[in-house]
Amino acid sequence: MRLLTFRENGSTQAGRLEGDEVVELDYADVGAILDADELGRARMATGPTRPLEGLRLAPPVLRPPKIVCIGQNYLAHIQEQNAKVPEYPTIFPKWPRTLVGPTDEVMLPAISDRSDWEVELAFYVGRELRHASEEEALAAIAGYTILNDVSIRDWQHRTTQWLPGKNFERTTPVGPWLVTPDELDPLNLPVRCTVAGKVMQESNTSDFLFKPAEVAAYVSTFTTLEPGDLFATGTPSGVGDFRKPPIYLRDGQEMRTEIEGIGELVNRCVKER
Amino acid sequence: MRLLTFRENGSTQAGRLEGDEVVELDYADVGAILDADELGRARMATGPTRPLEGLRLAPPVLRPPKIVCIGQNYLAHIQEQNAKVPEYPTIFPKWPRTLVGPTDEVMLPAISDRSDWEVELAFYVGRELRHASEEEALAAIAGYTILNDVSIRDWQHRTTQWLPGKNFERTTPVGPWLVTPDELDPLNLPVRCTVAGKVMQESNTSDFLFKPAEVAAYVSTFTTLEPGDLFATGTPSGVGDFRKPPIYLRDGQEMRTEIEGIGELVNRCVKER
Repeated sequence: MRLLTFRENGSTQAGRLEGDEVVELDYADVGAILDADELGRARMATGPTRPLEGLRLAPPVLRPPKIVCIGQNYLAHIQEQNAKVPEYPTIFPKWPRTLVGPTDEVMLPAISDRSDWEVELAFYVGRELRHASEEEALAAIAGYTILNDVSIRDWQHRTTQWLPGKNFERTTPVGPWLVTPDELDPLNLPVRCTVAGKVMQESNTSDFLFKPAEVAAYVSTFTTLEPGDLFATGTPSGVGDFRKPPIYLRDGQEMRTEIEGIGELVNRCVKER
Repeated sequence: MRLLTFRENGSTQAGRLEGDEVVELDYADVGAILDADELGRARMATGPTRPLEGLRLAPPVLRPPKIVCIGQNYLAHIQEQNAKVPEYPTIFPKWPRTLVGPTDEVMLPAISDRSDWEVELAFYVGRELRHASEEEALAAIAGYTILNDVSIRDWQHRTTQWLPGKNFERTTPVGPWLVTPDELDPLNLPVRCTVAGKVMQESNTSDFLFKPAEVAAYVSTFTTLEPGDLFATGTPSGVGDFRKPPIYLRDGQEMRTEIEGIGELVNRCVKER
C-alpha cells in the first residue's frame, strides 16, 4: 500500500495510491492515519478517486513528533570521509519546519554557498515503542519513504554539533508517499541522487552499517518512539562537499532523489533572496 | 508576573503566582497563554485562588515546539574542559519527553552510571521570530525559568553528536514558573546546583559568553522560533564528569537547582529499574 498527503484549497488530505489514481481518505494527512493506528482501515477504505497527475503532494506526515537522522551509515560514505567505522549510530535531529513536499522548491539559504545533497531512505514509526528489541522495532515500522537531507555545510561544521546546518527551513524534501513494508526489502534498494542531470550519488541500502530496525531499537533505549516519527537512515558517498573541488547546489538546479521501489522526489533549488 | 502550570485530576491548568497564592487561569498550561499571545490578559485575569503549597507543578509549557540547548556558554566551564572559546554557539536539541516538573522525580537510566547535573537559566519564546536582530529577539522572550540539563555522559559521547545523552526520558526538570523579563536581569543572576546537600555549581549568568537574546537571534537565522519554544542557555563549571575523580548522581539523592530571582527545582533522583 502507498499512502500520500495532498494539498488542496489551503488544506491537506490523505490518499491511497492505486496505479495512477488516488483514493481520497478521510484523514488530514498520513500522520493522522498512524496516530489513529488505522493502516488496516486505510487499506480497505473506499472513497472518491482522482488522478495522481496534477496533485500537489505534501510531506506524508506534516509534522512528525520527532525527526531522527543518522549520520555515517553507508560504509563507502564513511570511507570517503576517512572516518573510523563507528560502533554506535550517530544521531542528530531535524525540526519539522525543514520539510517540504516531493515536488516543492528547496530553499538554498541566502547566507551560505555550501548547500549539499544527501539522498536517504526514510521510514515512519507506526506505534509507541520503548526499550524495544530489533524485532519489535521492525514490526513497528509503518512504512518507508525518500528524504533528501540537504545540508548547509558551513553551518553544519561551525561547532561540533551539526544541528544548525541540518535545520534550515524548507531544505528537506520528503515523500512522495509511505510504502508499507510488505512491498519492498529495505536492505536492498538502489538509491540515487541526480543534480542538474548529473548522477551524484548511486548506491544501495545493502551497504547500510546500521539497519533501520536496529537504529529504531537503539533510539528506543532512551526515548519513546511515537506514531509519525520520521527516521532518515543516512546517505551514501557522492556528496558535493567531499568532491575535489567541492561542488554545491545552485539556484535553479533540479535535484532528483530516487529510491527504486518507492519513487522519486523532483525539486527545484531556489536561492533565498 | 510569575506563571505556572499545575496538575490536578489527570489534567493540567495554568495559574498566576501572587505571593503564596495561585490565581487559576483559564488555560491548560502556560504554553496555551503564549500560543494565544495573551500574557496581558493573564496578568489582569481574576479567578479562584488556592495556596501554592501542596500544588503539584508541571513544566510551565508541557510540550514546547522546540527545545534548543546551548553548550559551552560560561567562560569558566569552557576553561574547565580546556576548550577554545568558541566563535559560535553550540546548539543541540532535547525532545519534550525529557521534561519533568520542578519537584518530580528525575529518572537515572538503568543503563548508565554517569548521570550528571547542569544548572541552566532557560527562557520561553513568546512570538514567531525569523531573521531577527538581537533587539527583536530580546523583545520576543516571554520569560525566564530554571532547567537542569541532566546529561548521561557515556551516551553523550558515544559519537560526535550529543543527542542521545541529552534525551533520556524524564531527566530534565524545568520550572517552577515563567518569570516575565520585567522582574529580573537575565545577565546578573546567581545560579547554583546542590546535590545531596553539597554545592556542586555556583556561578552567575554575568559569565555568559552568548547572551540569551543573541542565541535566539542566531537560531532565528535558520528557523522560525515559535511561542512556547524553550531555550536552555548552558551550564557553568562544576559538573561531575570533569571532577577528579568524577562523581555522578546516585539513586535517592536530592538535586536542588536554584537561580536567584526565579526560585528552585527540588528533585529526587531515582534509578530506573
